[in-house]
Amino acid sequence: MAAPLYQKVIDRIVAQISSGELLPGSMLPSEMQIAAETGVSQGTARKSLMMLEQHGIVRREQGRGTFVTARTPDSSLFNFFRLRQPDGQMIRPELVSEVVTNRRALAAERKGLDGEPKNVYEIRRVRSLKGVPSVLETAVVSASRFVGLDQRAPLPNTLYVLYQQNYGCIILRADESISAVLADGESAAALNVGTGTPLLCVDRVAFDIMGHPVERRRSLCRTDSLAYQVSLT
Amino acid sequence: MAAPLYQKVIDRIVAQISSGELLPGSMLPSEMQIAAETGVSQGTARKSLMMLEQHGIVRREQGRGTFVTARTPDSSLFNFFRLRQPDGQMIRPELVSEVVTNRRALAAERKGLDGEPKNVYEIRRVRSLKGVPSVLETAVVSASRFVGLDQRAPLPNTLYVLYQQNYGCIILRADESISAVLADGESAAALNVGTGTPLLCVDRVAFDIMGHPVERRRSLCRTDSLAYQVSLT
Repeated sequence: MAAPLYQKVIDRIVAQISSGELLPGSMLPSEMQIAAETGVSQGTARKSLMMLEQHGIVRREQGRGTFVTARTPDSSLFNFFRLRQPDGQMIRPELVSEVVTNRRALAAERKGLDGEPKNVYEIRRVRSLKGVPSVLETAVVSASRFVGLDQRAPLPNTLYVLYQQNYGCIILRADESISAVLADGESAAALNVGTGTPLLCVDRVAFDIMGHPVERRRSLCRTDSLAYQVSLT
Repeated sequence: MAAPLYQKVIDRIVAQISSGELLPGSMLPSEMQIAAETGVSQGTARKSLMMLEQHGIVRREQGRGTFVTARTPDSSLFNFFRLRQPDGQMIRPELVSEVVTNRRALAAERKGLDGEPKNVYEIRRVRSLKGVPSVLETAVVSASRFVGLDQRAPLPNTLYVLYQQNYGCIILRADESISAVLADGESAAALNVGTGTPLLCVDRVAFDIMGHPVERRRSLCRTDSLAYQVSLT
């Protein structure tokens, strides 16, 4: 599947921001310069900047130019991690174990990931909160989009930082579907609970800046001392 | 606890909107008129309008006046009901049973509800989705704020419509805390499942336009054919 031209421009700007070549607050080249440098029309350059602005990556100031938004990626990414203490306090998860494998995509994965990848990386991690193994997480991404991911272990706590800094892939939305399940032998062993313990099963699809699904993830979570917290408006 | 003066103005305007006296799109009286009618200062009237605007109830147009926002309350209230079919489709719950009781507030309820009520109404309902009893819900509100609530049974599907139309109480935010639990005898019977079936336990605190907690609710939900769905950004 050929990427549209505006994606090429977006990828380039996102990569420049990720690499630090473009710092927060700094001014981007003009539409005309961007068009010339990337070989697209000025209209395409404008469309790219508008999409980046819509997603809060840049902001355009009338008569002044386009600027990189100042962001604190790590904290904003924590919006995606909803397990909290009863009092609402955030806890940073610690890695207990991690296995990254390259395997054939299942039919549903292939259909449900952008680019319909034949192969995927499966990232299987156990994460602990306050010393208690609390989350058994299985994330799946396209092997062709995230080339060499298995060489980067141990992966950072927040995978989205890795996706952004090394693959120019900015996650802006995640849809979650939550159900209650019973721990089976494998999850019980990983989370140090008895089989039949109730767990939250959180199925997530994460979308990049273009709104394409780039990661599918299932997290099995103990909720005896934590809860999934969210505010609805 | 005496309500602040701006709350008096807000209550009056919200009641006028709820009753249909002020229709969506219609113009509100001027700050000066509002002040005169409600016996507050013009500054207090202005503050009330600003708060109503912040919450999307009215919009102010420079040099023209203040207008009631056109809203579809029922659909917007469905933002608070997150149980969906696997494909994301919304299902309207049907009432299976309902018991409303007036009782002493538990210490935590008293502390956790605006006005520290001595007595509360407890609304206990079983709701079904597609003919399957799916949610056992226990909501608690102040008996002094929601006077005569027990006389209004059967209550409407969406309690927040009742709160708004009969008590001038607009719910704008709900914080939810979700865990996995096992069905006990009572919830198993209500939901027609075996004891030990995994259920979602959703603890909610709902806040009014002033940001005060006005309802506490626990929902036990079957998730064998449904899931709690939410989008994070």
